[in-house]
Amino acid sequence: MREGRFSSAVSEIAQRYSESVSFDRRLYHHDIAGSIAHASALASAGILSADEFEMIARGLREIENEIAADKFVWDQSLEDVHMNIEAALTKRIGAAGAKLHTGRSRNDQIALDLRLYVREEIDAIITRLRALQNVLLLLAQKHSEVLMPGYTHLQRAQPIYFAHYLLAQLEALERDHERLRDARRRADVMPLGSGALAGSTIALDREATAKALGFQHVTQNSLDAVSDRDFVADFLYCLAMIGIHLSRFSEDLIIWSTTEFGFIEFSDAFATGSSLMPQKKNPDMAELTRGKSGRLIGNLVTLLTILKGLPSAYNRDLQEDKEAFFDSVDTVRGALEVFSAMLPALTIN
Amino acid sequence: MREGRFSSAVSEIAQRYSESVSFDRRLYHHDIAGSIAHASALASAGILSADEFEMIARGLREIENEIAADKFVWDQSLEDVHMNIEAALTKRIGAAGAKLHTGRSRNDQIALDLRLYVREEIDAIITRLRALQNVLLLLAQKHSEVLMPGYTHLQRAQPIYFAHYLLAQLEALERDHERLRDARRRADVMPLGSGALAGSTIALDREATAKALGFQHVTQNSLDAVSDRDFVADFLYCLAMIGIHLSRFSEDLIIWSTTEFGFIEFSDAFATGSSLMPQKKNPDMAELTRGKSGRLIGNLVTLLTILKGLPSAYNRDLQEDKEAFFDSVDTVRGALEVFSAMLPALTIN
Amino acid sequence: MREGRFSSAVSEIAQRYSESVSFDRRLYHHDIAGSIAHASALASAGILSADEFEMIARGLREIENEIAADKFVWDQSLEDVHMNIEAALTKRIGAAGAKLHTGRSRNDQIALDLRLYVREEIDAIITRLRALQNVLLLLAQKHSEVLMPGYTHLQRAQPIYFAHYLLAQLEALERDHERLRDARRRADVMPLGSGALAGSTIALDREATAKALGFQHVTQNSLDAVSDRDFVADFLYCLAMIGIHLSRFSEDLIIWSTTEFGFIEFSDAFATGSSLMPQKKNPDMAELTRGKSGRLIGNLVTLLTILKGLPSAYNRDLQEDKEAFFDSVDTVRGALEVFSAMLPALTIN
Amino acid sequence: MREGRFSSAVSEIAQRYSESVSFDRRLYHHDIAGSIAHASALASAGILSADEFEMIARGLREIENEIAADKFVWDQSLEDVHMNIEAALTKRIGAAGAKLHTGRSRNDQIALDLRLYVREEIDAIITRLRALQNVLLLLAQKHSEVLMPGYTHLQRAQPIYFAHYLLAQLEALERDHERLRDARRRADVMPLGSGALAGSTIALDREATAKALGFQHVTQNSLDAVSDRDFVADFLYCLAMIGIHLSRFSEDLIIWSTTEFGFIEFSDAFATGSSLMPQKKNPDMAELTRGKSGRLIGNLVTLLTILKGLPSAYNRDLQEDKEAFFDSVDTVRGALEVFSAMLPALTIN
Repeated sequence: MREGRFSSAVSEIAQRYSESVSFDRRLYHHDIAGSIAHASALASAGILSADEFEMIARGLREIENEIAADKFVWDQSLEDVHMNIEAALTKRIGAAGAKLHTGRSRNDQIALDLRLYVREEIDAIITRLRALQNVLLLLAQKHSEVLMPGYTHLQRAQPIYFAHYLLAQLEALERDHERLRDARRRADVMPLGSGALAGSTIALDREATAKALGFQHVTQNSLDAVSDRDFVADFLYCLAMIGIHLSRFSEDLIIWSTTEFGFIEFSDAFATGSSLMPQKKNPDMAELTRGKSGRLIGNLVTLLTILKGLPSAYNRDLQEDKEAFFDSVDTVRGALEVFSAMLPALTIN
Repeated sequence: MREGRFSSAVSEIAQRYSESVSFDRRLYHHDIAGSIAHASALASAGILSADEFEMIARGLREIENEIAADKFVWDQSLEDVHMNIEAALTKRIGAAGAKLHTGRSRNDQIALDLRLYVREEIDAIITRLRALQNVLLLLAQKHSEVLMPGYTHLQRAQPIYFAHYLLAQLEALERDHERLRDARRRADVMPLGSGALAGSTIALDREATAKALGFQHVTQNSLDAVSDRDFVADFLYCLAMIGIHLSRFSEDLIIWSTTEFGFIEFSDAFATGSSLMPQKKNPDMAELTRGKSGRLIGNLVTLLTILKGLPSAYNRDLQEDKEAFFDSVDTVRGALEVFSAMLPALTIN
Repeated sequence: MREGRFSSAVSEIAQRYSESVSFDRRLYHHDIAGSIAHASALASAGILSADEFEMIARGLREIENEIAADKFVWDQSLEDVHMNIEAALTKRIGAAGAKLHTGRSRNDQIALDLRLYVREEIDAIITRLRALQNVLLLLAQKHSEVLMPGYTHLQRAQPIYFAHYLLAQLEALERDHERLRDARRRADVMPLGSGALAGSTIALDREATAKALGFQHVTQNSLDAVSDRDFVADFLYCLAMIGIHLSRFSEDLIIWSTTEFGFIEFSDAFATGSSLMPQKKNPDMAELTRGKSGRLIGNLVTLLTILKGLPSAYNRDLQEDKEAFFDSVDTVRGALEVFSAMLPALTIN
Repeated sequence: MREGRFSSAVSEIAQRYSESVSFDRRLYHHDIAGSIAHASALASAGILSADEFEMIARGLREIENEIAADKFVWDQSLEDVHMNIEAALTKRIGAAGAKLHTGRSRNDQIALDLRLYVREEIDAIITRLRALQNVLLLLAQKHSEVLMPGYTHLQRAQPIYFAHYLLAQLEALERDHERLRDARRRADVMPLGSGALAGSTIALDREATAKALGFQHVTQNSLDAVSDRDFVADFLYCLAMIGIHLSRFSEDLIIWSTTEFGFIEFSDAFATGSSLMPQKKNPDMAELTRGKSGRLIGNLVTLLTILKGLPSAYNRDLQEDKEAFFDSVDTVRGALEVFSAMLPALTIN
């Protein structure tokens, strides 16, 4: 159980090394949603009075609004997003705030937050994937008569329609979509009630909490629930595969935009030029995307290596699951957005 | 299209560097099954006569039996498993053998072989996973009253049942099982008819071929079908995750079998001793399994890095997808087998 | 050549996706040092007058002071650190500022900045390594009589001195030190004068520039000089190895601080407790360090994968070399600092 | 200490899972050289008589010849190369053979064998690197007048000499050469005498043994000496970097050999064609080499992940260091050989 505040004697070096609030604050929305659902379960179980529940829920929503409005003061000495919010709540509403942590540990709390976050971000990525697939479909319709050489080994093989090429990319993204749905299904399980590792002695209605948070299932084993980061790895793997598909697409576009191939021309809005060579137009967005596939693979390796050889249950190593993960989410969001904007602006020769 | 025999002038160095028959021969069974199904489609389309089909099918089955009996002579100068079998067939039955390649390219042929192999090996791994889950269940029942300390941060936290620990491992394997089923579903798509990249001018009944080979779906885009190795990556990822779960299980067992913890004792059948220190009993199988998670992660990186930045369609780089992949399959098969045998022989203190 | 300002029509999405100033601003000090040295070479070659050189050097130093004092306004639309500083200089001193870029490309400029940065950070890491080695030495002297069990396979094997253990860690760090010195030697080469890829038509005294910046050598081939990121990979590899050594050290400490082993106790200043279980003391710093070895390996993979399969010369993919790299530098700096502070505070039982 | 023969009751499953003789037999030559040097030290210390030493040395040389002539029968139940050779020796010369293991453990023995192997293979790789550099130099001289477009972002930038391009590749290989020399220097340390982890009670002249085996140094700390695999990681990293350089070279060649670029043409001896498209010439060797950089990176990840989080001293996980490592050595040897043969046969347009 990682209830652990630092002792008063805690080293400032240690605090700086181990704080996570500088990056896990991103989870504030999910942390608060989870806390309200948990408070509701405590109220149903008679542990919180109706008034206490109201105070907690109202207090948390106020904090959420402050954070959203960038008015909340984060305190690094409070280590992480959970402690910052909990401390702010207790300061605001007093004793009732402290009762919120009844029947909950930071171990199942962070598992819940991460699952809520993964679910939400998978949905956001799927939306962007769909948008890019639509762009590809429209482009394929628009250029339905354009023929181009088909290549194997980068050697001309047989003529194909450009639309056929575009639909091949769409197919690959469709598999990404399926993978994301599978990953979402496996993330869609509610871990609260697992406590530090051995569950809680307080009988809470876990199904109700799951329903309130929109989860399809509840975790079956408390020890597994606090150890498990498979759902993060699954998502990171999905993101790495999207990166690989976009790196292939990028490689094609980069080669086709050379003087020698001359199949396409990037719009000025998505290329850079050169002061010395004004005729030059560099396919920067495609190159960056090809490069970014490297970090997506690297981030997957980061998590898998962190998990390798860890003992069961919560170990502080798991705190390291977040930064690489957030980075991959941001990277793929950006890449999908750029491709959706860049492709319609291509000139096809 | 990789129809390409080496020219007569081919360098011996090049041949040695690029041959794949030394490892892709493992796919002979799938290659022959695919060829028979393709021949059947050619017969249905009137391209092969009923006699020719019979000769081909019989010839291929004879070759299959010879390979199974280790009587087939593989010829490295024939480069790969496909060419070896095709050459043997043509030698055996003459002109009809050469017609087998009508409407097919080595690009869709290898895609088919790999999909058949992946599907079969996923099933084999699932069987072993299930067996290990059963072992865990039986152990949990047998030791249903045993209490042990539960740990977080490897510090004693709360007592748990040993059975609870075992069922946590079972849960993790259940997610592996789900992942494998998802991967299998995505591999279960028949690519034949994609040709080198642009499909085939000969109208073959792809649905019938799919049905004959037990596939649920056919690929939708020929260019994508010959470029796609997602199904290999998916499987490699599943195998890496199994490795990570077993590395965690191993770490627990290694720590518990120390003198200091003393929770368990490995059977002599699964430990090594020391001539100098006869009382010593080393948890070798758990250590090896923990170590092998490294190669499972490394093999995944191998494939992802190969795919990164490749142009669309077949590139010879893709030949490199196999060895790391076969290695991961063998590694996980072995690890699951060892765990299923080792766990019942543990002494629980 | 990446001289390229974005065209006026540049997409805001593209700009956000491709800007690097949010992270490469870290190189401002090295960028300015390099620019002053380049200006000096231009002055020696008669391209800048003495007055122009003075204006440039003074202007750059003022900018440097502003940045150091956090008073400089970074403009994301100016893309990167180089453009931001160049634009500020030109605004400040007019036409002379624009002449600074004579005989230089952003391709050799960024290669120079990175080499200066690598050299400096290697020195900083070596200093911290040395400090940790001293801590180990002092501890070994202090506990020179303490015996402990030596383990193989985590099974007790033979008694050893605790000091022997500590000196084993020191030895591993000594290899890290040697590796860093080798990496530094290979980074210590001055690339300016390579231009975009083909060198510069202006004859500049490269040896003098190298001397001014404290480099031992100058690059021999302009195309290689702008393509080369080996020195970044070398450093990332060194950092990953330090991480692996510290992960092993951490694993030992975590196991030894269990109740069952009881060899050591972490100081309150470097451990966290539990509100529910006050006797519990978690080895968080060691766990975090073990976990952080994952990101160090992942960051190395990020760079190697970015480099894999890139064509020669500058490609925009190379912009992606920095974030993972900066992250590894910060991670190892932090870990070494924590270990140096944490170890003397250990209680040895 | 891994002296441990399997107990008679050892499971056949466990034996199959854990045997290493199927791949570590590659070290037989180094194992025997090390044993003879160790026997000589035992003789100098008076532990072996002159006759016993002679019997051992002669016996080992006979075994070496048998292995070289492929007449030695390897026994998987004897687990590894060390046990196979030791058992054969004892069978051959009786009691004296058993004395060979005095003052030595399998832990320092395998460390020695690996170091001898690394040293030898680094030399072999350097020889091939040098040969390839010579090929590049000769080509550059031969085509000293050929101009070609220089590219950045794969867009035409400035004309360069083809020789300039070739010498850029030579420079990159020169850094590989330096890295290998550094790695060799760090491998060139003699570990014998470290015993299982705590050294040996028998005073052996380690410097003499080092000298006999051509080592520059002896290891300083026995615990570190049996834990250390840095020298394997260093070599794997060097091999991965060579792979990355060759992947870049390959990418250039593949693009240049397209119809659209048309700068070069591969010789028939190093390309494959297509039965359907006889004019097609595929750059298979370059593609394979680009792909093989993936396995070189993957193999490095394999080792780094194995080492991550391991406790100090020998753990059986370390057995897993070999296969990926041997694979990288073979891969780079092959790639360098192919490039040296392929480049002179290129047609330059």
